[in-house]
Amino acid sequence: MTAKNLFRIFLLFSACAIQLLGPLACRGPGKSAAADYEGAADALLRKGLNERGAYALLEKITSVGHRLTGSPQAAEAVELTRRLMVEMGLDNVRLEPTTVGRWVRGEAECRLESPLSETQRLDALAVGGSEATPGGGIRAEVLEVLSFDELAAAGERAAGKIVFFNRPMDPAVLDTFGAYGAAADQRVRGAAEAARAGGAAALVRSLTTRLDDFPHTGLMEYDPDAARVPAACLSTRSADRLSEALKRDPAAKVFLRLDCRRLDPVVSHNVIGEISGTEKPEDIILLGGHLDSWDVGTGAHDDGAGCAHALEALRLLKGLGLRPKRTVRAVMFMDEENGGTGGRDYARAEARRGEKHLAAVESDRGGFRPLGFGIGRNEREFAPFRKYENLMKRVGLCWLRPGGGGVDIDPLAESGTLLIGLVPDSQRYFDYHHCGRDVLEAVHPRELELGAVAMALLAYILSQDF
Amino acid sequence: MTAKNLFRIFLLFSACAIQLLGPLACRGPGKSAAADYEGAADALLRKGLNERGAYALLEKITSVGHRLTGSPQAAEAVELTRRLMVEMGLDNVRLEPTTVGRWVRGEAECRLESPLSETQRLDALAVGGSEATPGGGIRAEVLEVLSFDELAAAGERAAGKIVFFNRPMDPAVLDTFGAYGAAADQRVRGAAEAARAGGAAALVRSLTTRLDDFPHTGLMEYDPDAARVPAACLSTRSADRLSEALKRDPAAKVFLRLDCRRLDPVVSHNVIGEISGTEKPEDIILLGGHLDSWDVGTGAHDDGAGCAHALEALRLLKGLGLRPKRTVRAVMFMDEENGGTGGRDYARAEARRGEKHLAAVESDRGGFRPLGFGIGRNEREFAPFRKYENLMKRVGLCWLRPGGGGVDIDPLAESGTLLIGLVPDSQRYFDYHHCGRDVLEAVHPRELELGAVAMALLAYILSQDF
Repeated sequence: MTAKNLFRIFLLFSACAIQLLGPLACRGPGKSAAADYEGAADALLRKGLNERGAYALLEKITSVGHRLTGSPQAAEAVELTRRLMVEMGLDNVRLEPTTVGRWVRGEAECRLESPLSETQRLDALAVGGSEATPGGGIRAEVLEVLSFDELAAAGERAAGKIVFFNRPMDPAVLDTFGAYGAAADQRVRGAAEAARAGGAAALVRSLTTRLDDFPHTGLMEYDPDAARVPAACLSTRSADRLSEALKRDPAAKVFLRLDCRRLDPVVSHNVIGEISGTEKPEDIILLGGHLDSWDVGTGAHDDGAGCAHALEALRLLKGLGLRPKRTVRAVMFMDEENGGTGGRDYARAEARRGEKHLAAVESDRGGFRPLGFGIGRNEREFAPFRKYENLMKRVGLCWLRPGGGGVDIDPLAESGTLLIGLVPDSQRYFDYHHCGRDVLEAVHPRELELGAVAMALLAYILSQDF
Repeated sequence: MTAKNLFRIFLLFSACAIQLLGPLACRGPGKSAAADYEGAADALLRKGLNERGAYALLEKITSVGHRLTGSPQAAEAVELTRRLMVEMGLDNVRLEPTTVGRWVRGEAECRLESPLSETQRLDALAVGGSEATPGGGIRAEVLEVLSFDELAAAGERAAGKIVFFNRPMDPAVLDTFGAYGAAADQRVRGAAEAARAGGAAALVRSLTTRLDDFPHTGLMEYDPDAARVPAACLSTRSADRLSEALKRDPAAKVFLRLDCRRLDPVVSHNVIGEISGTEKPEDIILLGGHLDSWDVGTGAHDDGAGCAHALEALRLLKGLGLRPKRTVRAVMFMDEENGGTGGRDYARAEARRGEKHLAAVESDRGGFRPLGFGIGRNEREFAPFRKYENLMKRVGLCWLRPGGGGVDIDPLAESGTLLIGLVPDSQRYFDYHHCGRDVLEAVHPRELELGAVAMALLAYILSQDF
């Protein structure tokens, strides 16, 4: 596009924007009209995009390295974000303990052995929480399946074999979280189902629509009443290579060695800081992300971005002198990835007595261009927010709609907290999720900042109006 | 985010989507209800995201290299896309001539010379269309200004100097095209204004909010009645370095050498192919991008993406057997960047007689996640499309709104054609625009494909309903 016609287009768009934003509907229980927040919205956007503070915060958070639950790096990140909150001048900066499990990945070795071809290395990582392979590793034939039903139908053929779950994430689904949810059973339950079928181990195709050499790890569950067999994820290219090889030689074997270890639980922390409300400090608007990450890459999108969003939102409000009537609190949750203990312990902590959490906003879908907020569990909870949609468009969102929540804030629902989730565009998220590519450079400063601006504006509205 | 709660969230979102998409408004002049197109929308999305054909097309287009107007590569791209259209089985594949100017960049050499520091290289590129520097280059003191007003106020101080336009693109503007439009005067008119002030040359800060070493080129205009002085753009880092140096030593000099040459005009081509309408083949729905690019990078976002969008849209319609009643035509316009001759010659070509262009959809804002379509010049032209907004959300768009057009299709407005522009998210666009970073790897296959799917669906609706 040349510059020539840009002035014209710019003016046209400006005119449209004014048309769209002009006559704001005024219904719902809010005490202020949406129009009252236009100044705040513009100031937040301007300051945010000028300073791009979220990226600077994320740079610091990811400088620690990965932040696996219970790791020394996670402890370092706790201290780092506590210090950042103090430096930002937040009120009541503190740590709240949460006892977390510890698991150490160790090395992974995986290769394909067939008399029909040379031995090939397969790019593999232990699935998070996996047992180690016994002794010097497992060498076994492979049963490839696309579903648990197919595994069940295989009957005795699974006995002693490495079960290879190779159903790809469906690329045709627009919402990649939906496609992920529909394929994640293989990683979460693969080892348990393989064990039930008599298998020796599980291999799982990585949950991404990208074709590359990065294995994507993530949580798994064992069944208490079944054997605990080791499980590893394969990069999508390695999964394709293995599948091809099995077509040529169904008796090809895989050698798998995993060195994982489980250590004793350890006390870790949620990190909390806030801007105390000027009128109702006991009423809380919570903004949260999770500080822990998987131990590959540096958890930049998952969920350094969410932590940066929450911290930056408070930095923007404070910097602009937007004093909330209710308390706006940032929480860096610990252990979202390995059991969600941080979120649960936060909700039931003694310190919650005397507090009322009106709303909790979670950002745990990456630092991409934000599209909207999912708000409340149903139309009734959502309805009061409809009138703010045009206001939110002013800072770059496209919509507000029902459907909020997240692992860290869900435990607050019991006490009546309104659950809200930030929804960035999801097209690129699973290129990075839980793999070595999830590093600072994968995050765009402007895209990240827009998430923080939207969260700051929403928190401000919630703190004044509800 | 863990997989645990994803099924739940997935179901919730699905429920919301059904709520949103269910009761479709039925007003406006359309003959079919929006609901009639849901099957087509779903099929287009599924085929598009499964096959990601737009990326494969873009890979071919960018394999030619850059495609500067009048260059051998541009000619190669004409032949390549013609062949691609034939291979796709499009109807009436043909070239239409357009005579275009030719300009060759040659080498650029730029450095800062001050007795207070070592000589520093500045990353520079000739602005597109610039004259060469005379003889062995220009060595002169520098006048830094932020606007033409400031230049005018400097009066005689500009005489004999290199005028350095260093006003950054405003990072605080949400729509980066708006920020670009507000800063592009420096590149487009800088040399002309410098010459009027008696300056020897113009240096222009690159039009991007990124801080890096890539100069961003683009078009400029000389005034017919003023001297033609050379102009170069500096990378943002070099611009900052120069500005800092001038604070320390206002008498610091810049040496600038540009080897640009203007060659004789040459005949190039617009490339045209279509799916002939089954009922009204003379009624045309045009989908277009421009095939030429700047001569740095490979013009992947600008505008290989737009060409891939248009071609892929026709591929999807054809592949799904969605036969349009009116003709859906793809046009790869030549010379958007250097004067827009392709668009003008297309509109006034003899071949347009007997054709009626109902609508023209241009994609020239990159291959990022599409947010919406700008449709028509005003509310009246836009109104009939309001009812399709929910349908378009089904394939990933967020909105439809007034405000369409583009350099290549604007000349069709005279004959009453409805002008439409695809609007992808703009946050990352100027990281790549007109610089060496605009290469295939900067484009995401899913984001790109969604643009093609949206264009295919809109073209299909236009071909049936209007």
